[in-house]
Amino acid sequence: MKSLLEIGLTAVAFETVAEGRSLPLLAPMSDIAGKVAIQVGSHLLHQPEGGRGLLLGGLPAAERGHVVILGAGVAGGSAAGLAAAVGAQVTVFDPNRDKLAAMRALGANVTALHPYRHDIDQAVTSADLLVGAVLLPGARAPHLVSAEQVRKMRSGSVIIDISVDQGGCIETTRPTTYAEPTFVQDGVIHFGVTNMPGAVPRSASQALSAALIPYALKLAAGGWESEPTLAAGVNVREGKVIYPALKEAG
Amino acid sequence: MKSLLEIGLTAVAFETVAEGRSLPLLAPMSDIAGKVAIQVGSHLLHQPEGGRGLLLGGLPAAERGHVVILGAGVAGGSAAGLAAAVGAQVTVFDPNRDKLAAMRALGANVTALHPYRHDIDQAVTSADLLVGAVLLPGARAPHLVSAEQVRKMRSGSVIIDISVDQGGCIETTRPTTYAEPTFVQDGVIHFGVTNMPGAVPRSASQALSAALIPYALKLAAGGWESEPTLAAGVNVREGKVIYPALKEAG
Amino acid sequence: MKSLLEIGLTAVAFETVAEGRSLPLLAPMSDIAGKVAIQVGSHLLHQPEGGRGLLLGGLPAAERGHVVILGAGVAGGSAAGLAAAVGAQVTVFDPNRDKLAAMRALGANVTALHPYRHDIDQAVTSADLLVGAVLLPGARAPHLVSAEQVRKMRSGSVIIDISVDQGGCIETTRPTTYAEPTFVQDGVIHFGVTNMPGAVPRSASQALSAALIPYALKLAAGGWESEPTLAAGVNVREGKVIYPALKEAG
Amino acid sequence: MKSLLEIGLTAVAFETVAEGRSLPLLAPMSDIAGKVAIQVGSHLLHQPEGGRGLLLGGLPAAERGHVVILGAGVAGGSAAGLAAAVGAQVTVFDPNRDKLAAMRALGANVTALHPYRHDIDQAVTSADLLVGAVLLPGARAPHLVSAEQVRKMRSGSVIIDISVDQGGCIETTRPTTYAEPTFVQDGVIHFGVTNMPGAVPRSASQALSAALIPYALKLAAGGWESEPTLAAGVNVREGKVIYPALKEAG
Amino acid sequence: MKSLLEIGLTAVAFETVAEGRSLPLLAPMSDIAGKVAIQVGSHLLHQPEGGRGLLLGGLPAAERGHVVILGAGVAGGSAAGLAAAVGAQVTVFDPNRDKLAAMRALGANVTALHPYRHDIDQAVTSADLLVGAVLLPGARAPHLVSAEQVRKMRSGSVIIDISVDQGGCIETTRPTTYAEPTFVQDGVIHFGVTNMPGAVPRSASQALSAALIPYALKLAAGGWESEPTLAAGVNVREGKVIYPALKEAG
Amino acid sequence: MKSLLEIGLTAVAFETVAEGRSLPLLAPMSDIAGKVAIQVGSHLLHQPEGGRGLLLGGLPAAERGHVVILGAGVAGGSAAGLAAAVGAQVTVFDPNRDKLAAMRALGANVTALHPYRHDIDQAVTSADLLVGAVLLPGARAPHLVSAEQVRKMRSGSVIIDISVDQGGCIETTRPTTYAEPTFVQDGVIHFGVTNMPGAVPRSASQALSAALIPYALKLAAGGWESEPTLAAGVNVREGKVIYPALKEAG
Repeated sequence: MKSLLEIGLTAVAFETVAEGRSLPLLAPMSDIAGKVAIQVGSHLLHQPEGGRGLLLGGLPAAERGHVVILGAGVAGGSAAGLAAAVGAQVTVFDPNRDKLAAMRALGANVTALHPYRHDIDQAVTSADLLVGAVLLPGARAPHLVSAEQVRKMRSGSVIIDISVDQGGCIETTRPTTYAEPTFVQDGVIHFGVTNMPGAVPRSASQALSAALIPYALKLAAGGWESEPTLAAGVNVREGKVIYPALKEAG
Repeated sequence: MKSLLEIGLTAVAFETVAEGRSLPLLAPMSDIAGKVAIQVGSHLLHQPEGGRGLLLGGLPAAERGHVVILGAGVAGGSAAGLAAAVGAQVTVFDPNRDKLAAMRALGANVTALHPYRHDIDQAVTSADLLVGAVLLPGARAPHLVSAEQVRKMRSGSVIIDISVDQGGCIETTRPTTYAEPTFVQDGVIHFGVTNMPGAVPRSASQALSAALIPYALKLAAGGWESEPTLAAGVNVREGKVIYPALKEAG
Repeated sequence: MKSLLEIGLTAVAFETVAEGRSLPLLAPMSDIAGKVAIQVGSHLLHQPEGGRGLLLGGLPAAERGHVVILGAGVAGGSAAGLAAAVGAQVTVFDPNRDKLAAMRALGANVTALHPYRHDIDQAVTSADLLVGAVLLPGARAPHLVSAEQVRKMRSGSVIIDISVDQGGCIETTRPTTYAEPTFVQDGVIHFGVTNMPGAVPRSASQALSAALIPYALKLAAGGWESEPTLAAGVNVREGKVIYPALKEAG
Repeated sequence: MKSLLEIGLTAVAFETVAEGRSLPLLAPMSDIAGKVAIQVGSHLLHQPEGGRGLLLGGLPAAERGHVVILGAGVAGGSAAGLAAAVGAQVTVFDPNRDKLAAMRALGANVTALHPYRHDIDQAVTSADLLVGAVLLPGARAPHLVSAEQVRKMRSGSVIIDISVDQGGCIETTRPTTYAEPTFVQDGVIHFGVTNMPGAVPRSASQALSAALIPYALKLAAGGWESEPTLAAGVNVREGKVIYPALKEAG
Repeated sequence: MKSLLEIGLTAVAFETVAEGRSLPLLAPMSDIAGKVAIQVGSHLLHQPEGGRGLLLGGLPAAERGHVVILGAGVAGGSAAGLAAAVGAQVTVFDPNRDKLAAMRALGANVTALHPYRHDIDQAVTSADLLVGAVLLPGARAPHLVSAEQVRKMRSGSVIIDISVDQGGCIETTRPTTYAEPTFVQDGVIHFGVTNMPGAVPRSASQALSAALIPYALKLAAGGWESEPTLAAGVNVREGKVIYPALKEAG
Repeated sequence: MKSLLEIGLTAVAFETVAEGRSLPLLAPMSDIAGKVAIQVGSHLLHQPEGGRGLLLGGLPAAERGHVVILGAGVAGGSAAGLAAAVGAQVTVFDPNRDKLAAMRALGANVTALHPYRHDIDQAVTSADLLVGAVLLPGARAPHLVSAEQVRKMRSGSVIIDISVDQGGCIETTRPTTYAEPTFVQDGVIHFGVTNMPGAVPRSASQALSAALIPYALKLAAGGWESEPTLAAGVNVREGKVIYPALKEAG
């Protein structure tokens, strides 16, 4: 950031390019992160990985696993979709009613609730897999689950925080890399890889390049100032930070 | 029964006509009873009926109701199918693995478990609607839920026992009629109408007459003795009880 | 209303708070009313309640029931969704093509039609359950079904008019309460409870409080005048009626 | 047949090889015939082909087409499955309750009924596409629909009789070939091609050769006499007709 | 067009009436064209029509057919929906990510890709049925598939170009009529009927009249100038061409 | 085995207890192994594990992964079911037509084929994940995929052979353990853990104990000799090997 400011560049951060409230270049990455979270979570629940040793989708005569997801945006919704497809019992929290309705439409095994503290507490306690997916564009995610709540989770359960690079929405998470992706705290496996789409570069590059093309063409044509979508994504302009969330963060 | 014996009749009870383990003339009635159980249960859960005041299928920002079903035969499976379709969270108990697999295939909101006492106990405690559907051909159903367990249920929850005319598989149920279909015990609404298909005579007569026709033709043709399906359904023969379960019952 | 005007209050009616054409605080209640309509309707069709005695979803060898729904807004769409899920044959009428497309997406057992008088007439005549769900914000609903058309319905069929508190969209309906919820006219059972969500207060309060929270926070913050969503919901301001539909109604 | 008898051959007719009541080598052909019937029927309903000019699956604001199917065996079930998938309103007739249940499981747009004359009559009158699929192994199919009933069908509707090579189950059908596949009688388009799988030889040969391989291996191994499945398919043995249905037909 | 200009009329072309980017009066026709394309394509693939002789949905032991669709607008999406429903393997190309997501939601047998030349090339080569559905309002469709690519297609495969009346998006297509709907080039059957909804006038008129009514009422009320939806559809005004795409075309 | 013979025991191997052709005590373990295979395979395809770096279910603008499964028994069918649910493109090979039909019913993204060498060859070459699931009760599985075919697979693709403890149906697989579960040959990741259900002991013990209970009760009651299901599972009797497949293996 410092060097960007010193050379006086005007720079667009592609994850902040915006069309209304949606972020068209961040969306494919969030979509992937949500799906990778469920795939990684299913695997970490295997006993040889230290997990509780259960199948998320259950079996005849065996319980279905419980997946709890914080946030029903692109990442949370994508995670909920895959968790529902494999047959887990899914609980998603979000304050937005339309998003809750969209979550319920993913399957009759999805319960969609307002993020009341009491309800989150109850859900987290019985979760096999807890996914944090609260993303505020360019800002820090709030802590929805405290360290104390994590201590109440069962041994061998799994936490994956997709928002960890923005501070995380679960108090006990911290950034990790694919070199050493997990750590255990209070018996709970934590996965905090900040670059989750890095697990599937082939799918990611296909999806991202397709999303980038129209914006690249607009940039090349020169008119970013008169193009509100791109203008919204300008973080630094001629040596000054102008993106609101970055400015506040100082 | 007495008069049947005195006049020396040979009588086929249509609910015991058997093809292998299946009862083709009882099946349509059991199918209807299962569906009526869910329709009646949904309605009794309405607050003006004394129920807990919830929608079985839930809503955005509201929990789904919990339906617990004892037995995954025709009646239990039919109840589970309708409960799954309306979006409830469904738990079905049965000792047969193939039936459990069939229950899971009804939807990802169905959990299918072996009837361990501990698991039944836990499910019943959190049930909004408990359906008893354990039918042993011609014999008394065992009690899978005790009066003590019913006392642990929440006020305003509902019990419907389809097997009530065979003694019931829930200790607190007793037969009722559509004239006064319910009674309340320990705060739980009990529905024990023995002739549940009587609620929907139009559908019932269509389904039953279609099932009866082939057997009626065989009876009319005279050869019931050489027809194992019909022979299996003979309860009384020339003034003697010959159906095994009735004989034991003495 | 009179007393509101006399004390000079400024009052927001939560059912008229608007975001564009959608009514975010009325929506959960309409959603519930639609689902309750199908649950109550299924039950009233039972013969002991006076109904035709059929299962909406049908059976092998028995017809599916026919549900006709006037209006494909939130209430009508919710009713259509539950009717489709239980397996009824569903016909929905609405003038808006996008809404008709949404109705068809609920299931292949849903037919979605323009409200031509001739087509409504034909559908109503063969309906087992007729649901009125035409809601015009703050205004009287038009009569889409006349008393004469109701006379052509079969004995024991059921009418439930969700819009009855706004005059009803079916000529023969009139408001009732849960104390005496139904009346019979021309052999057709009419259910006109104005407060349908009152059947399921537990689900309703969960859904409504989640919807209210963001608006309550805005009201508390004081700025309703600069908040178009809330401003749209002001019915009475400093002793004067300002909501257009109310003003017209005089 | 004559020449087979004269040369004293023993011959297995592959369409009569039987495992219990199922015909494993006829099944793939029946499956294809059912699907081809719906594809051809959809096309004949186009106005340039003389049809009523409608889409079987309907549209927003337009009715779904009505497909009536006689028989729920392999061919009828396959036709019902494709008709349900494209979104038509489907009515299937069969006397067997288990088959009716299987038909209903194809989709909520399928109604499955006992073949009462009155119900067939009503369904045929409103059919856009009528498919005959009553196949009795080696025997003549009964007429379920009379010429008089066909006269009541609407102009431009379509009849396809898969059983036409066994006499047909609809009185007005007669065998045709792909050279001149259709004829019109009483305004109704009749399609009576006896070799329907001939439309899709690529799919048919893949499916049939896979089905034949295990039986060909058994035949090659020589032991057809001790192999009940093959033995059931022997029509002519050392110059004598021994297959029951053929013998009766004389 | 000439005569329109001479008489000095002001004329609205209903296929250019616009609400934002959507064309509400063209949409029903495009929806129908997409569905007709799949019905006609299924039929042309039958061997008696010259096609490859396969079932789009496949069979046990036989491959599913491959349908490739260019464009995921109303027509392409409708074609993809029906192709997915019948069980084909479907590949759709479109540059818009939201539309690709909508296509994937049609079924797990739909793959949705960016229209890179290389990927189109690979898909077209293995296509059994290629559907062109690139519609630019009032403008010429670009050629996405060249004559050279068509030469690589297998003999007996089928091309249907819905955009043929705007020049077509496949180089080898040319307009035809229902009188002689197809021609063969390089072994590939081409169907280029410009008025595809003409196959199903009954469904089309129901859908179109329902869509027209609200606009007809607005026109009749006289205020088209203050009604942006209608104003957008004015092609000729008082003797002058004013619709941008027509003006350019000169 | 030797020691069993020396002490003269009569022993039932629970994986050979048989009801007709089905193995009720092996079934739950095979079901689990199939599901674990897809979960492990999804994870091994992540780039940090050495895999090709793709999501099996794909994304908007990205291909779906290709899963090839050899065998459609309990294990293969279970793997196919989960692979279909996550949205992969699935190809299953089996010689039995009824099983192929069951596989197609799992979803329109499943293609079910006869195991012709040519078709296996083509599928394997484009597979991202190849699952071997050919289990012959008590006998060695045949090699359906040769080392030469494996060499044609793409680098970073994955092989999981559920039948590896019976010799494996893929030539290059060999048994491994969870301590070191994978090895790479010809660029392809091989997973050969013989005790796959060991990954999910919690689910496995629930499912297995429920399946065992009825047989344990029968054994305890003493009558295994008159109980054909148990008798079929006797491998060693009073010091002699009597299970046919073991005897041959000698």
